[in-house]
Amino acid sequence: MAVPIVPFVGRSDVGKTTFLEKVIAELKRRDRRVATVKHDAHSFEMDHPGKDTWRHRQAGSDVVVISSPEKLAVIERVDQEQTLDQIAARYIGNVDIILAEGYKRSKKRKIEISRREVGTELLCAEEELLAVVSDQKFPISVPHFGLDDAAGVVDLLEEKVIGHAHLPHVDLLVDGQVVALKDFPHDVLSKGILGMLSALRGIDSPREVQVKIRTR
Amino acid sequence: MAVPIVPFVGRSDVGKTTFLEKVIAELKRRDRRVATVKHDAHSFEMDHPGKDTWRHRQAGSDVVVISSPEKLAVIERVDQEQTLDQIAARYIGNVDIILAEGYKRSKKRKIEISRREVGTELLCAEEELLAVVSDQKFPISVPHFGLDDAAGVVDLLEEKVIGHAHLPHVDLLVDGQVVALKDFPHDVLSKGILGMLSALRGIDSPREVQVKIRTR
Repeated sequence: MAVPIVPFVGRSDVGKTTFLEKVIAELKRRDRRVATVKHDAHSFEMDHPGKDTWRHRQAGSDVVVISSPEKLAVIERVDQEQTLDQIAARYIGNVDIILAEGYKRSKKRKIEISRREVGTELLCAEEELLAVVSDQKFPISVPHFGLDDAAGVVDLLEEKVIGHAHLPHVDLLVDGQVVALKDFPHDVLSKGILGMLSALRGIDSPREVQVKIRTR
Repeated sequence: MAVPIVPFVGRSDVGKTTFLEKVIAELKRRDRRVATVKHDAHSFEMDHPGKDTWRHRQAGSDVVVISSPEKLAVIERVDQEQTLDQIAARYIGNVDIILAEGYKRSKKRKIEISRREVGTELLCAEEELLAVVSDQKFPISVPHFGLDDAAGVVDLLEEKVIGHAHLPHVDLLVDGQVVALKDFPHDVLSKGILGMLSALRGIDSPREVQVKIRTR
């Protein structure tokens, strides 16, 4: 992935959201653009019964958008749980890092939050972990941070994660599915498309380009 | 635009949402994939204080996503009101039509809902209109439909709007801004990219392709 994705995992009630709040605030203090993704096993309710957008959705709309001068929200029906890579490719643009809450089963390297009161063992194996945030020590050789040390975690993210993507990076979605690209097709696509775009007037060293083609 | 966008406009309380509900339901009965976009002048509240996603946003997250097996929601901070074309290019994929509620000032051809009780004049001029839905007749030569005639409106949309896009169609976003393409660069991009993709295994007559390139 072009934009790094880091899942923050841990047992229920361990304080994942509380720690994430601190990490988000610290990243924002350092002028980073941040996205967060929360996994919800149930059917969350984002909308309010009776509101226009709720009525659109009840009537059957597949995608409902509400747009104001300060923010924009999209609610979309999906057939199945979207992966972090799909979510990143399809919905998230122009951020430096994506922090996920949950997604224990993701293959990405994670940060585990642990508190003695909630459990004395980790959920993740050493090789799955980027760091542990805890009030206890574990016999594994990944960095440990205290439950208040968001700055330490952000230092690690800055050093090891942000800005370590191989760029330019291409995300390809075909009919909504992420298509993994080997190096050669990846480079042909990125160089081919950026090359074509460089011939257009007014496009000067873009940071992010998105091309969507509908064929039928 | 590849996906047609039709704004439904009218005075406050004329019944725009009520009529849209019927149009959405009728399109779904005909197996169409539908997106709706609602304009909100105020700062809508989609989220609930205290919820995890609300806490992410309060902590400063620029993009908050919540994902479940049935639906996905994205809330994004924006610097300014997004245009319908930006919203379509950036957030909406894989639908047959986009119905907007409001967007009176959009240049797109609109359907105006009117009710005698709420006003006896139209907001839009004849040349801005695709149709009028009303309990009164206006001296203009655009199709008129009754306030219960969602099927008639959908017949018109099917006949004049859906499936009339020139395909393949390319939407190009550079750093989040829609870039209008003349015919030649449009065709070079679509043929060039679809040509490159046709060389990849497993990509066989895609309906929609999205390529996102991050350069730094």
